[in-house]
Amino acid sequence: MSLFEAFRPKPSLLNEVELAPMESSRLLEDTDNSDINGYQSTFNDPEDDDELLDITDERYRSSSKRAKIDLSQGSSLVDTFEAMLPGNDKYEDFYTIDWLHDKNRSMQRQKKIRYKRKQSWWARIVASIDDGSGWLVVLLVGIAAGTCAGIIDIGTGWMSDLKDGVCRKAFWLNAEQCCWASNLTFGVTQCPHWYTWAELLGIQHEGSKDESNLAYAVNYVFFVMLAMVMASMAVLLVRVFAPYACGSGIPEIKTILSGFIIRGYLGKWTLLIKSMTMMLAVAAGLSLGKEGPLVHVACCCGNIFSYLFPKYGTNEAKKREVLSAASAAGVSVAFGAPIGGILFSLEEVSYYFPLKTLWRSFFCALVAAFVLRAINPFSTDHLVMFYIDYNNPWFIWELFPFILLGIFGGLYGALFNYCNLKWCRYRKTSSLGNYAISEVVLLTFITAIISYLNPYTKQNTSELIAQLFQNCGPEDDVNLCDYRRNITDVDKNSWPGAVAGPGLYTAMWQLSLALVFKAVITVFTFGIKVPAGLFIPSMAVGAIIGRILGIGIEQLAVHNPDLMIFNSCKPTEACIMPGLYAMVGAAATLGGVTRMTVSLVVIMFELTGGLEYIVPLMVAVMVSKWVGDALVHEGIYDGHIKLNGYPFLDSKKEFMYTTLAADVMRPRRSDPPLSSLTQESMTVEEIENIITETTYNSYPVIVSSESQRLVGLVYRRDLTMAIASARENDEGIVSQSKVYFSNHLPRYAPPGTPAPLKLVKIIDACPFQITDQTPMSTVVEMFRKLGLRLCLVSHNGRVLGVITKKDVLRHIAEMDQQDPGSILFH
Amino acid sequence: MSLFEAFRPKPSLLNEVELAPMESSRLLEDTDNSDINGYQSTFNDPEDDDELLDITDERYRSSSKRAKIDLSQGSSLVDTFEAMLPGNDKYEDFYTIDWLHDKNRSMQRQKKIRYKRKQSWWARIVASIDDGSGWLVVLLVGIAAGTCAGIIDIGTGWMSDLKDGVCRKAFWLNAEQCCWASNLTFGVTQCPHWYTWAELLGIQHEGSKDESNLAYAVNYVFFVMLAMVMASMAVLLVRVFAPYACGSGIPEIKTILSGFIIRGYLGKWTLLIKSMTMMLAVAAGLSLGKEGPLVHVACCCGNIFSYLFPKYGTNEAKKREVLSAASAAGVSVAFGAPIGGILFSLEEVSYYFPLKTLWRSFFCALVAAFVLRAINPFSTDHLVMFYIDYNNPWFIWELFPFILLGIFGGLYGALFNYCNLKWCRYRKTSSLGNYAISEVVLLTFITAIISYLNPYTKQNTSELIAQLFQNCGPEDDVNLCDYRRNITDVDKNSWPGAVAGPGLYTAMWQLSLALVFKAVITVFTFGIKVPAGLFIPSMAVGAIIGRILGIGIEQLAVHNPDLMIFNSCKPTEACIMPGLYAMVGAAATLGGVTRMTVSLVVIMFELTGGLEYIVPLMVAVMVSKWVGDALVHEGIYDGHIKLNGYPFLDSKKEFMYTTLAADVMRPRRSDPPLSSLTQESMTVEEIENIITETTYNSYPVIVSSESQRLVGLVYRRDLTMAIASARENDEGIVSQSKVYFSNHLPRYAPPGTPAPLKLVKIIDACPFQITDQTPMSTVVEMFRKLGLRLCLVSHNGRVLGVITKKDVLRHIAEMDQQDPGSILFH
Repeated sequence: MSLFEAFRPKPSLLNEVELAPMESSRLLEDTDNSDINGYQSTFNDPEDDDELLDITDERYRSSSKRAKIDLSQGSSLVDTFEAMLPGNDKYEDFYTIDWLHDKNRSMQRQKKIRYKRKQSWWARIVASIDDGSGWLVVLLVGIAAGTCAGIIDIGTGWMSDLKDGVCRKAFWLNAEQCCWASNLTFGVTQCPHWYTWAELLGIQHEGSKDESNLAYAVNYVFFVMLAMVMASMAVLLVRVFAPYACGSGIPEIKTILSGFIIRGYLGKWTLLIKSMTMMLAVAAGLSLGKEGPLVHVACCCGNIFSYLFPKYGTNEAKKREVLSAASAAGVSVAFGAPIGGILFSLEEVSYYFPLKTLWRSFFCALVAAFVLRAINPFSTDHLVMFYIDYNNPWFIWELFPFILLGIFGGLYGALFNYCNLKWCRYRKTSSLGNYAISEVVLLTFITAIISYLNPYTKQNTSELIAQLFQNCGPEDDVNLCDYRRNITDVDKNSWPGAVAGPGLYTAMWQLSLALVFKAVITVFTFGIKVPAGLFIPSMAVGAIIGRILGIGIEQLAVHNPDLMIFNSCKPTEACIMPGLYAMVGAAATLGGVTRMTVSLVVIMFELTGGLEYIVPLMVAVMVSKWVGDALVHEGIYDGHIKLNGYPFLDSKKEFMYTTLAADVMRPRRSDPPLSSLTQESMTVEEIENIITETTYNSYPVIVSSESQRLVGLVYRRDLTMAIASARENDEGIVSQSKVYFSNHLPRYAPPGTPAPLKLVKIIDACPFQITDQTPMSTVVEMFRKLGLRLCLVSHNGRVLGVITKKDVLRHIAEMDQQDPGSILFH
Repeated sequence: MSLFEAFRPKPSLLNEVELAPMESSRLLEDTDNSDINGYQSTFNDPEDDDELLDITDERYRSSSKRAKIDLSQGSSLVDTFEAMLPGNDKYEDFYTIDWLHDKNRSMQRQKKIRYKRKQSWWARIVASIDDGSGWLVVLLVGIAAGTCAGIIDIGTGWMSDLKDGVCRKAFWLNAEQCCWASNLTFGVTQCPHWYTWAELLGIQHEGSKDESNLAYAVNYVFFVMLAMVMASMAVLLVRVFAPYACGSGIPEIKTILSGFIIRGYLGKWTLLIKSMTMMLAVAAGLSLGKEGPLVHVACCCGNIFSYLFPKYGTNEAKKREVLSAASAAGVSVAFGAPIGGILFSLEEVSYYFPLKTLWRSFFCALVAAFVLRAINPFSTDHLVMFYIDYNNPWFIWELFPFILLGIFGGLYGALFNYCNLKWCRYRKTSSLGNYAISEVVLLTFITAIISYLNPYTKQNTSELIAQLFQNCGPEDDVNLCDYRRNITDVDKNSWPGAVAGPGLYTAMWQLSLALVFKAVITVFTFGIKVPAGLFIPSMAVGAIIGRILGIGIEQLAVHNPDLMIFNSCKPTEACIMPGLYAMVGAAATLGGVTRMTVSLVVIMFELTGGLEYIVPLMVAVMVSKWVGDALVHEGIYDGHIKLNGYPFLDSKKEFMYTTLAADVMRPRRSDPPLSSLTQESMTVEEIENIITETTYNSYPVIVSSESQRLVGLVYRRDLTMAIASARENDEGIVSQSKVYFSNHLPRYAPPGTPAPLKLVKIIDACPFQITDQTPMSTVVEMFRKLGLRLCLVSHNGRVLGVITKKDVLRHIAEMDQQDPGSILFH
């Protein structure tokens, strides 16, 4: 394990920041991690452990960071003062950005460019490019996201098939392409160039369909071994090169888009490693999908390309506009659903979604889908992933089974979320967290061993879903379509129900077993240290149960054609469509797990092309969400955000309580009063004492301790550095020098007075302030909508206390705890 | 004209409010119309005339309003004090709502219900109903909107055909239904039960196809006469019963959703009259559509049904959630495009769109579409309006003509907006405004006279668009499809281009004339005093130009099959699809006029079912928006909002300037200082003097005039009423009584001191305050996102001034004026 010593768990980030507040050179910053005033508290979910900001459940971050910071600390003070200029400030890792500040910076930048534009033709061109860079960057992101998705799709297909065998003529082709090239129409099993491992080793005769026991065993062993090799490679790559590449990434992207900084989470290494390991993890046959990770990959592209344009690269708030568009592109390429992608970005991921972003997101999503289509990794004519070719009507009474599927989806989602979060919490808190590689390898072993035995678990999950979504037609001769029919060649749409044959019964048993296996193994899979999405496994569970229910009702209709509800079934037409039930079931389970709503319905109908079936999908998703919300009140992504303690202020949940700002602000009544600085009466020594005695990150500046009138806010780091710089460089600044946070120094100082120190430049003159009688619902709205980090509380014009984003988050958690049932239906 | 005397133009609303500030009994209110402090100013568009709040360009409102208000003014003071309790306050007409206040009220209400829930089973049921009322109300709104749309569609169809003739067998059938009933398959002209007016009068022989000159003249006269009768009825109904029913309604709905109150704009009379007059206006053959008005009708349904549920009926902020959903349902039924409806509501109409509204809007839109489909007014199997039955691929080089169409759309949109706004301004400012009825009748006369002569203007505009969107198939024998072919029966999709026949040339001429006519007449039509939508006429213009261009390119391809770009055209397949060009052209012009983006593209592809053609549509809409924005920087709806002077703070445009709050706040440096009240030192007489001398609507309360520390805000009306009530009812309150805005009255008053008056209850203890150094971009964000109406400005803890929503609007207008080119591309 010496290789990974650098990645051992470290003390939680909060402690790090608190213990070493001087470590960072960042200026103009208040953080969520340390408090400006009042008691030092950590925001903990009541059930949560002590870690506040555990980004991944082990602390992977390289220890070189500390050294880097120390270096910058040693840089000259002129540099650090320059860093205070609006154009230069940059956020430290794990800090929350200041939205309004960034927006103002962006505006100032724009103004400067507009001003210059009038001066020369060249400046005019530069300004025009800058103007158009918003469109350019989303164009590039769209192209990049589409390309990545295409490469990943192709790579995954090839590697998945590698577990079974190899294309002898051209090893770089997957089974399907290999058999295409051979121009045979007898189906895959008759393909002459595709060799299973047993065939390659000469154990089985080439082209013979019957597998001997030995050949079966050899193929089995190769399957399991290769799966384990792939999974090991994936987990090793992740741990060594890009620890942030694990998981689905959506909880973190939600947090980042809400204004949090996680350096490197969207970097080029994460992009590269996540793309590679995604293919490996999916190909290893683990019960995970590549759709969530594709959103992460697209966001990496967004982040990287935004650095090409100073408008976005140097401004975290503006960059988040590009990231919103990128996440739409991610879903767009994951499912071939551009409109669903926008709605996903809007509903699930984005925090701040100005309307001009909508249009650019649409553009980005379309470009990505277009590029992916040009690459054509599925080698089909359809942009959509699970194209369905039926559009028969459904009957009103079918809403009843659809509601049943919705209830199942909600129950499954709640149970899954509960078990998965429990397991992830156990992994975090127990020593299991130290054995991430072994865990992945063991899980792959179990998954491979079991899944090889069942055709429905052995095959690629996407293919399984595609198969389940289809209705049986004349050309289908698989078990799932084994009906006792006497007609042979009719149109697929008029392929009526028939009595089930023995193959169908086998298929039902196998599907039931696959259902149990998938449902159980996914709980343990989501959260391991490889890229792992939830969409496909969740959909698979729902599709299986839906298909089973659909076949059940179909058989009911076939055996009881006289029942009233089946009256409308014509004998020459497909009446009950098991594929539709699978579709509805898939939407229901996915809805239960993620609690997505409109975006899910739109994705599902874009995914399948089934514009006719919006109502069944909607009913199932709605029921599923209601049932799920009644049991476990959060989607899996919000659960993981909470589990990891990210400072995420959910903009979807309404704050429904009637508390006041006075109940939340610190210091509390029993605490010592707010420690603040006076504008003109303090000496350097007094301020240094306050800095030493307290650990707050910023201090309000007041006119005098009697009036307590607010002048502004000053940040600890600015203060420390300004004083240190003055003591070093300025003549005459001693401990007894008076500090002036104002422009008017006294003209006639008595002789013998030490030179005054003027620090008006480091004051933030526009902090937000509210009165102590302000309802907390208003305060929460302000924090959410304006992206505040801190707000001063006053009474009758006297500054009394402060509310930070962390206080708000803690207060919401406390209130929700006291009254858990209040959020339903809102 | 004596009938309409009551509706004569009155002095502008602003003056009304300013002259009679005591007229209204509303409490706890600051308005956009009168200022709290500083100079009395009106927010005027620099080019605008003096009227601020001219809702319709004539003042129709009944004079009984004044009497009503006087009545309420006379009500007992106990009532007015009760009206201050949170549950009872209601907004006056033409005021801006207080979003945060309403949200807090809603929360308090919820808390009360939750508290009661624990007490009895009955309360639990009531609480559950209240919980579910959000879904119930959108369900009802959806059903109502769908039903209204169905009735309107059927009525319009019948009345439109009435201009031509009547179904003799059953007069309530329109031409199509009449001929269905006759079960003939020879087409409409052979329909035995349908009589033209000439046939009915015996001038023309029944069933004969050739029209004599006399018969033509008779039919012509009937056509024009009936059109004028219908239009007259429409305008009379509007003027007498529901003046708010005129126009498209979308600018007003945008304003209402942004938090403005226009009483009666969404009332039951407006609903009824608008539904009726919509049918009449469309049937009269005027160049207008019923899609925009349908949004208004749906919003009326939303408003009416929200009164059934106290959660929504008594809370203006909550009601706007229902209205957002209703506007989505309106578009959903207007075009059969539920997802487009949601995006329209999100992008164009809604101001405050919390995400839970998204899901409910979707539900509402779907229910409405479902109900409309059940009513089936088009008698087709498709939910969509202009279903297209082709899905051939398009070629990359075709993007060039599509971009051309986009440029045309942008130019047309800019020109149309410019001319229409000029004309509407002329109508407002000149005496033309007094002749609304004559204007409508004259316009109908001109429209009918001209449009009868051209088959493409005579027919229903929706039908024209549907026809232009279609490609020619083997069954089409109209002029537009007159090609010289030698094949007769092939699949429509493989119906290749051919040399144009003489019929097609005729059709091209007629279409060109129709184009000019529609483009010109619509400028004069949008804004007349009948319900009038823009969607259909704008689309018609675009569809015609698109079709002409498409046919041109088709002929180019036919005559030059060897050109490189036409290489990919197979001789057996349709290559250039003129219908697609029409579709793209329609999207481009509509985009140019309204500046909608994503919602327009989604509406277009839902409207036509053309999922394949997203990219052409998007390119055209994008180009059209860019070109349009470069010329006239606002959509037609925003233009009308500005023209009418509605206080609408656009949440889409970013505020890109670097001014500070100190530059905007009032009083300015040259003005007298802020008149404020002190907490404990003023007498009743002093306060009464301030009230008499100033006209502000609210006054800040400060601790003392030396410290200027803010205690809270007190509203003029509260103050007036509280003092009047105290003087009347309380013993010992005289002019020299001290007024205390605090809880601690002096214990030992010197003898002879008059009894003190305690007014702490009327203080708003949580006004918003900012420092004078706050950037205006932050202030604008606060006003927009939090829905503020007023914000106090302080410096070093001293209250210096105030910024109202009107100040913000004026400042934005001033800045945009100074730097008009700055908004492009953002």
